[in-house]
Amino acid sequence: MIKVTIFNEFVHEKYDENVKKIYPNGMHVAIADFLRSDEISVRTVTLDDPECGLTQDVLEDTDVLIWWGHVAHDRVPDEVARRVQESVLKGMGFVVLHSGHHSKPFRYLMGTTCNVNWREDGDFCRLWICDPSHPIVAGLDRYIEVPHEEMYTEPFGIPEPDKLLMIGWYDSGEVFRSGCIYQRGHGKIFYFQPGHETYPTYYIPDVQTVIRNAVKWAAPTYRTPDLPCPWVPRITPKEG
Amino acid sequence: MIKVTIFNEFVHEKYDENVKKIYPNGMHVAIADFLRSDEISVRTVTLDDPECGLTQDVLEDTDVLIWWGHVAHDRVPDEVARRVQESVLKGMGFVVLHSGHHSKPFRYLMGTTCNVNWREDGDFCRLWICDPSHPIVAGLDRYIEVPHEEMYTEPFGIPEPDKLLMIGWYDSGEVFRSGCIYQRGHGKIFYFQPGHETYPTYYIPDVQTVIRNAVKWAAPTYRTPDLPCPWVPRITPKEG
Amino acid sequence: MIKVTIFNEFVHEKYDENVKKIYPNGMHVAIADFLRSDEISVRTVTLDDPECGLTQDVLEDTDVLIWWGHVAHDRVPDEVARRVQESVLKGMGFVVLHSGHHSKPFRYLMGTTCNVNWREDGDFCRLWICDPSHPIVAGLDRYIEVPHEEMYTEPFGIPEPDKLLMIGWYDSGEVFRSGCIYQRGHGKIFYFQPGHETYPTYYIPDVQTVIRNAVKWAAPTYRTPDLPCPWVPRITPKEG
Amino acid sequence: MIKVTIFNEFVHEKYDENVKKIYPNGMHVAIADFLRSDEISVRTVTLDDPECGLTQDVLEDTDVLIWWGHVAHDRVPDEVARRVQESVLKGMGFVVLHSGHHSKPFRYLMGTTCNVNWREDGDFCRLWICDPSHPIVAGLDRYIEVPHEEMYTEPFGIPEPDKLLMIGWYDSGEVFRSGCIYQRGHGKIFYFQPGHETYPTYYIPDVQTVIRNAVKWAAPTYRTPDLPCPWVPRITPKEG
Repeated sequence: MIKVTIFNEFVHEKYDENVKKIYPNGMHVAIADFLRSDEISVRTVTLDDPECGLTQDVLEDTDVLIWWGHVAHDRVPDEVARRVQESVLKGMGFVVLHSGHHSKPFRYLMGTTCNVNWREDGDFCRLWICDPSHPIVAGLDRYIEVPHEEMYTEPFGIPEPDKLLMIGWYDSGEVFRSGCIYQRGHGKIFYFQPGHETYPTYYIPDVQTVIRNAVKWAAPTYRTPDLPCPWVPRITPKEG
Repeated sequence: MIKVTIFNEFVHEKYDENVKKIYPNGMHVAIADFLRSDEISVRTVTLDDPECGLTQDVLEDTDVLIWWGHVAHDRVPDEVARRVQESVLKGMGFVVLHSGHHSKPFRYLMGTTCNVNWREDGDFCRLWICDPSHPIVAGLDRYIEVPHEEMYTEPFGIPEPDKLLMIGWYDSGEVFRSGCIYQRGHGKIFYFQPGHETYPTYYIPDVQTVIRNAVKWAAPTYRTPDLPCPWVPRITPKEG
Repeated sequence: MIKVTIFNEFVHEKYDENVKKIYPNGMHVAIADFLRSDEISVRTVTLDDPECGLTQDVLEDTDVLIWWGHVAHDRVPDEVARRVQESVLKGMGFVVLHSGHHSKPFRYLMGTTCNVNWREDGDFCRLWICDPSHPIVAGLDRYIEVPHEEMYTEPFGIPEPDKLLMIGWYDSGEVFRSGCIYQRGHGKIFYFQPGHETYPTYYIPDVQTVIRNAVKWAAPTYRTPDLPCPWVPRITPKEG
Repeated sequence: MIKVTIFNEFVHEKYDENVKKIYPNGMHVAIADFLRSDEISVRTVTLDDPECGLTQDVLEDTDVLIWWGHVAHDRVPDEVARRVQESVLKGMGFVVLHSGHHSKPFRYLMGTTCNVNWREDGDFCRLWICDPSHPIVAGLDRYIEVPHEEMYTEPFGIPEPDKLLMIGWYDSGEVFRSGCIYQRGHGKIFYFQPGHETYPTYYIPDVQTVIRNAVKWAAPTYRTPDLPCPWVPRITPKEG
């Protein structure tokens, strides 16, 4: 059983009628609904929870953390973001959705701005798969389509990915590194571009497949309880 | 002075009236014309030359080899292709244009199929720059445009590039890793997608800028005369 | 059940009394003996078999190919080596042992010389693990030790590994990138340095653990029957 | 002229008689002394300067920042460390020496713990060069030697380097990724292990060569004044 925690800032869904209509219970619930299965158990947390719901206990009980945030990155306390970063370094999987590229934990882990060029204009997006053999794209065709998305384009201020899995094509003329794979410490990280709040992106079966696969891929086989920097004794005594 | 050798198979330009009209003296001459300068000297060779003009002497006298081939990859002898591969490993720069992705030397160096998905239909292509700080894109804006190109799309059967510098967007809906950077042995390699023979791509100033920059970037600062696998003596005598 | 094929050139074991004493039935049999289990089935082939035992049928029936060769790389026909290369690109796992760094299939896949600096002098080797979370080193401590090994040292003429998993330390003063991970096409590749024929290296439990883990890690989840370079139709009809 | 700023925490040299004897004016002065030339101008700053001497003005006037710190990482204010991080992302080169692996700016840029296993016992260290063609090792032989060093060993908690340039061998039996190359944002980063304060490491000619070469290599050819995340207009008007 893979234990997933979904963090959603859960802001737009409460004040924007348009978003509320699409995700009446919040995006976290929509994502939880398609993930929950015999193999995956799901917990959801939001900004409304104390410490964003991301206490040490919760993180240690989480195999893969999914992150959605857009307008309220600053309301995640630095301390919570550091805790998430450390949990990833210890082995927790981390699936970062859409504007989560600008979330504190992702930026802490990347070390770069994670800035993009962007435009919110409902453009059509087709995500091309560069490596069909990767488990995250198992069961998919050559590409997946999202009828309307916020447009993100290059340059994307990230370190060169360990593997670039997907490239987004926009009918407005842009491209984006939309599916990026990293390892940091012992944790596996997947950034996946789709999921603007004003479109029903997380109801698209192919998008759900990617996230479900990513959860399975990112689930740790190895974790450390702490992140030591130890003094180590000599292997053999010094001569002379 | 950087010594450039341009290899062009020089086939289409001799039998296809359309291509001949665009490149009356062959593509190699068109490329040589914009490269030649106070900093760059150029030699051109073709399939018509003995050993494709790529003798050991020529390669040792070459800082950067530019390669264009499309329909006649098989007519390059294996031995010549191996010689090019070895020259790159010894430090020679290698700029591979368009269908050169399927040339023997490039495939030998990559170790993979270098296959693409493709369609020749004159589609518009916009090449987005992922890293504006790279010397190969010095002097360019956020993207360059090619009005008509052969379409190449993913999956592109290459090893993950050391750096993905450009991503191509096609108005027909596809994307491609159009500018890929590798080091193999001591040689720097740049693959650059544009340049289908039936379009005047190599007259586009931005395309010329990329190739000129790539030549300067790929010029070696270090070369080895051979590729040894030496027995080495002990640094200190064995004890006991 | 993971289907493993072990290729051993099987030369030294037939004429060198010292090697014969250590591996009376050949190294392939020694490796097969510790791999065979409820999860892994093993077939062995050698240079003595027609086509090195590596027919198309055998390769298609192989999940992971293990390769050991040292003095007889040239006796593997180019055609067989190409077939192995293509099988890896289609998804077959490939575990390359010791002097297999100079085997034709490994060099074809890397595209480089794969040369090393070397000395056969029975030096002690300690292999340090750079990433304890990788499945190939599951169950191991911080390092593994090999009492006597052929010494290989830098520069190692390989492309930068996707991940450097192990670094070898020799008591004679050298280091080596002893555990290197690559993906090429759809195939996973692991190069592992230990295993000189004159030492009983493949009887060391930690070495066996690495090879067993590597087999499980390299087993494909995805394979293609062929390696196409297809023309693809337009996604949407051309306008105008 | 390359403008170098050397930051040295400058702590040990003031209270430890042993260190003071080796570096009577501080390590920053010793490093400045061998760097200063017709090509390189040097400024030094320490923890004693307001804002560690690393004001926005100083950083904008710096091509390459060299960093040495060991016991006083915490005394560098977060704000200063962030400023350094941002300067690197904008294009400033960054050469991180010895225990600078644990400095705030390096850890911010890497996103990981940068932890090591370590022991201070004066062990002999030999640094092997993996790629002799890299400009940072120009003029060097196959390895460089440091008679006494603090021992750092694996696992080193860093992201996989873009290129691993040097591997350290210790006579005490360990190895370390001692020369690591990264690009983050537009800045080039080089981590170089040698330089424990109690040994005269920075007087060793080969060590000086590496640092001098690294400065030339890291000097930017491209810088941005800011790190924007811009809204961008449509390239062509929306249809319909």
